[in-house]
Parts: sequence; structure tokens; C-alpha cells
Amino acid sequence: MKKHKLIFSLLVFNILIYSCGEHAIQYDDPLPSWNEGSTKQSIVDFVDEVTNEASPNYVNPKDRIATFDNDGTLWSEQPYYFQFQFALDRVKEMAADHPEWNDNPLFKTAIENDMNTVMKSGMKGLMEIIKTTHAGMTTAEFEQSVTDWINTAKHPKTNKRYTDMVFQPMLELLDYLRANGFKIYIVSGGGIEFMRPWTEEVYGIPPEQVIGSSIKVKFELREGTPVLVKLPELDFFDDKEGKPVAIHKFIGKKPVFACGNSDGDLQMMQWAASNTYKSFMLYLHHTDAEREWAYDRESHIGRLDKGLDEAIEQGWTIIDMKRDWNSIYPYSD
Amino acid sequence: MKKHKLIFSLLVFNILIYSCGEHAIQYDDPLPSWNEGSTKQSIVDFVDEVTNEASPNYVNPKDRIATFDNDGTLWSEQPYYFQFQFALDRVKEMAADHPEWNDNPLFKTAIENDMNTVMKSGMKGLMEIIKTTHAGMTTAEFEQSVTDWINTAKHPKTNKRYTDMVFQPMLELLDYLRANGFKIYIVSGGGIEFMRPWTEEVYGIPPEQVIGSSIKVKFELREGTPVLVKLPELDFFDDKEGKPVAIHKFIGKKPVFACGNSDGDLQMMQWAASNTYKSFMLYLHHTDAEREWAYDRESHIGRLDKGLDEAIEQGWTIIDMKRDWNSIYPYSD
Repeated sequence: MKKHKLIFSLLVFNILIYSCGEHAIQYDDPLPSWNEGSTKQSIVDFVDEVTNEASPNYVNPKDRIATFDNDGTLWSEQPYYFQFQFALDRVKEMAADHPEWNDNPLFKTAIENDMNTVMKSGMKGLMEIIKTTHAGMTTAEFEQSVTDWINTAKHPKTNKRYTDMVFQPMLELLDYLRANGFKIYIVSGGGIEFMRPWTEEVYGIPPEQVIGSSIKVKFELREGTPVLVKLPELDFFDDKEGKPVAIHKFIGKKPVFACGNSDGDLQMMQWAASNTYKSFMLYLHHTDAEREWAYDRESHIGRLDKGLDEAIEQGWTIIDMKRDWNSIYPYSD
Repeated sequence: MKKHKLIFSLLVFNILIYSCGEHAIQYDDPLPSWNEGSTKQSIVDFVDEVTNEASPNYVNPKDRIATFDNDGTLWSEQPYYFQFQFALDRVKEMAADHPEWNDNPLFKTAIENDMNTVMKSGMKGLMEIIKTTHAGMTTAEFEQSVTDWINTAKHPKTNKRYTDMVFQPMLELLDYLRANGFKIYIVSGGGIEFMRPWTEEVYGIPPEQVIGSSIKVKFELREGTPVLVKLPELDFFDDKEGKPVAIHKFIGKKPVFACGNSDGDLQMMQWAASNTYKSFMLYLHHTDAEREWAYDRESHIGRLDKGLDEAIEQGWTIIDMKRDWNSIYPYSD
């Protein structure tokens, strides 16, 4: 009898563990690419605390909302936002049919491949290019053009696919949060339609949890078939003050965990910090010129200046990439 | 030994069933308020088919997106949209401080309680009133005013709380779809912020799965605390062509199941019908003047005219409320 009971108990235990993935118990280090130290410890302590029902800071699973910036937070963004390259590749493809672009300073520099000037136009310039180059396409055509590009284009410095340049420690953090019942959203200044075709495969984040900038679309019936056609008009710019606005619109709850890397994420951090639940604000500081890039207060791309001051003042957690991460990209392991 | 094995098997079976709610096996009729007949059968047949892995029309769980209109679909909408009453109650409360409203025909009729004229302004008029009466409030203040109203206001005809006037058969349908792995969204012409405070409790639909019309908001720091302040400007009108636009923006996938009751839902139906997966389009036809209301082609509220023609032409399923439902509201059981 005793032996049967033991076997039975073990089996039931295994069934309980394996039958519901979201409640799986993790014994191994869930964050192996993070060096031991205060940064990693503060993440683990926070997650332990808000998932412990006995804690006064316990967070109901339905309110475990985590928001992550994308460019420079989940993947690299240098020497310019990856979506820039996508848009410029489109401009060059289409330039022959658009002689009028030579009269537009932004497009002219793009055609001439003067990246430094284009970069200075920032995410706003990017959206300007996107909305012009993609007007008239259907959303399905745009999705296809993103998929084709993301499957073939290579980064000018590493010669890797762009989706290979996601941060291994962040992939682990996403998995760790999911295993602890968090629902993860991307909240990016980048285009919502540029991200959705690949975020599920790369990050495990489905389209409905991707928030970003967008251009307007119009519903049309084409020979009885409904399509959404892209218009040359910005719909929403999801950066800075736009991030809490979008979080409110799409989610309707404040995050308890917010992660970003630039001043464009500061208002999202402030929004999370104002949660009545205890919340966690995490900034990634790019400090590794050797393995990735080192930049902050003076950078045109991903500037981290006011955000760094406020993070220090408020005691938010700051990842020092060089010190805290023992691996950068999945391929570099 | 045999006895042990049997007990063991039964226990494991129970554990497997009860440990993962989403895979629970349902033996009882999941739709008891639906009369037997072709409408109910078509719903059950569709769900059986798309959840059967052996079927050529199997739908991957991550793509089981269902979109439901709210007014007239999940709850009643007569003699005028319930949010109208909320807005008018606000207008009357605030009228003394706004003498200028007497010069605005829409507001004047509202203050004079001339509901017939106000009703003719439709959902657009409602949004006009909402954006004016709520400008300057923070989103948190607005949420509180909705909560206060929904907990106390009563319907002029039934004298029931508005949230008591949800359709019992639809509550069963939502549960049934969820039990079969569908992710349910509300896609309503009504205000997103008017619905979110109570949809989770009433329908089991969390805020992040509620899509609707909205007015613009602005991020502000008030003495260091971030707030979103409502502006007197429409952000998005989620009706007719707006519904597929919003579905694309918020979800990024086409529904496989769409349910509505008016011409305002027709484009959402067309969008679902164009899914590459087999999809199901369900119109509720209000045919029960005794237990609810009977209206369609000529109604100012919830007009169903073009939608009815197209539903018949395309062979979409049409609920005949009087014939198909043996119960209307939860309290009438």
C-alpha cells in the first residue's frame, strides 16, 4: 500500500506541475544571462513579492500587466532604428516612380543614403517616410512586405538578421514574467504593423499585445472583398506622452512592470510608478561599446537623459548592460 | 491491484479535468436559454468543427478571436442607448454651470429631456455630448462617475439596473465560446471608458478586451502625479467602417466569430467573413415586443436594414429573439 501511495503521489504531483504550464514551478535559474548582483536580485525580489499571496504587495494575476519598449529594449537600435532601414529600402525601391521625392529634403537624403541626416529626423521622420511610402497599400500587402524584409535583410554591422539581434537576457526576462502570470505588451514608438508580423515568433508576444505608432487606414470593399488601405496620414505617435495614452486606450490598466531604455519611455515609467499596486520600473542603459553600443545623453537614437536622472532620483532599477549581462544576443552564446 | 488502478485512473481523470479550466469537458447543455433549432445548432456545429483538430476547418486556439457588439447585442439598447441616459444625467447635473449649452440645439433638447430629438442624433450625438460633458475630467474621475452611475441608475421601463438588462442567452454564449478557447472582445460604438469599469464583472470580459469609441486624452503631471485628462475632441468613432479599423488596430487579426445586431456591425461582419479561416457571422434580430423590443429597418437606435439583407443573402445566422430565446434577462428566469 505504502509504495502505491508514494507512486500515486508522485504521479499526481507531476500531473499538477505539467498539466498547467502557467503554474509550472521553476527550480533552475530562470535568468542565466543575467549576472548575479543587485539588478537581477531586484527583479527576482519584485516578482517573488507580487506573486506571493501572503505578501501585502500581492498583485492579482489579472492585473499583472508588463509593458516593454521594443527598439533598444528588446532588440538593438543602432546605428539607426531597424525600421528606418526597412523604410529606406522601400524608398530606394520606389524612388524611380516618385520624382517628386527629390524636392522633399527628408526623402532626398534618404535616397542619397545620407543616414546621419535621416537619423536626426528621429522616429517622427521615420513615420513620415513610412506613411508616404506605404499609402495606398492594403494592410495585408504591408504585412507581406515586412515579412519579406525581416526574413532577408541583414544588419550593416553584424551582418545578422535583425531578429537575431534581440537581447537574450530580455528573452529570459519575458519567459520569467510569463511563467509568473504576467501579461506582456510591447509599447513601442515603432510601427505597430512593422512589429506584429514577427513578435509572436521572436518574443512570444501575440499581435493583440503589440502597441505602437500607426498611420490611418480606410475600410474599402474591392470587388466585394473588404480591405484596409493605408492612408498618408499619421494616426498615432506612440512615444513619450503617447505611451501612457496608448496604454490607457489599449489596456485600460496601469502596468505593474515597465521596461524601456530612452527618454521616450519616461512617461510610461511615470504611469507605471503611479500604480496603486507596487510597481517595478526598469531602464536598460546601453554601456557596452564592445558587445553592443554605448550611448545615452547625447544620442540621436534612443537618447537617455531625463529618464536617467529620474531613474536615479526615484530609485528605479537601471541595467548596466556591460556589468549585468553575460550574454547579449542569442547567437553570441 | 485492479481497484487501486481504477481509483487512480479516476483521480487522474478528475485532476486533468479540474486542473485546467480551459479544457474542461462540458456534458450538460451549455446554452440552456437557447431553444432547440437551426440557430442554436449552427452555433454548436461551428464551434465543434473549428475546435476539432481532425477537421479541415480547425482553428488554431491563438486565432479563435470572437468580436461582439455591445448595445443591442449583449444588453438592451431601447428606448435609447443606455450611455445616452448616463450622458444626459451628467448634462442635467452640470447644466447650471453651463448657460452656453442653451445655445446648442443638441444640449438644449437634452436639458429639456426631449429624448426623441436627442435620439435622432444617434451614437454621434451621444459622443458629442460625452466629449463636452467630460472634457477636463481625468480618466480616473470619469471611471468613478461611470461606476457610481451604473451602480445606482435604473432603466425607465423595467426599473432594473442597466447591468441587469444583459441577455442571459448571450452570457451563456460567451461562457461557451470561452470554454472552447475563444478570446472574446467587445467591439462597440459605445464609449470604451463607459464599458470598461463593469464588463469584467458582468460579462467576464476584461478591460483590455474592450474596444469602443473614445475621446482624446492628454498626459499631464499634476504636482508630480501623472494623469490623463479628457479633451473635448473625438478620438475615434467605432461604428460601421470604424469597426474593422479598430479590430485591426487593437487585435491585428480577423475575427472567426462576429456577433452584432445593427447596420453598425455590418462591416465587422464582412471583415470576419473575409477571414481565411472558416468564420461565423451572427446577427441578433430584435423580434420580441413583449419580452424586450421589436425593431429593425426603421429604428433610430440599432437600425438593422442593410445588415439584414446581407445576412440573408450571405446565409449568415440570424437569431430570431422571440423564437430562439426562452429567456431574455437573468432576472426573468
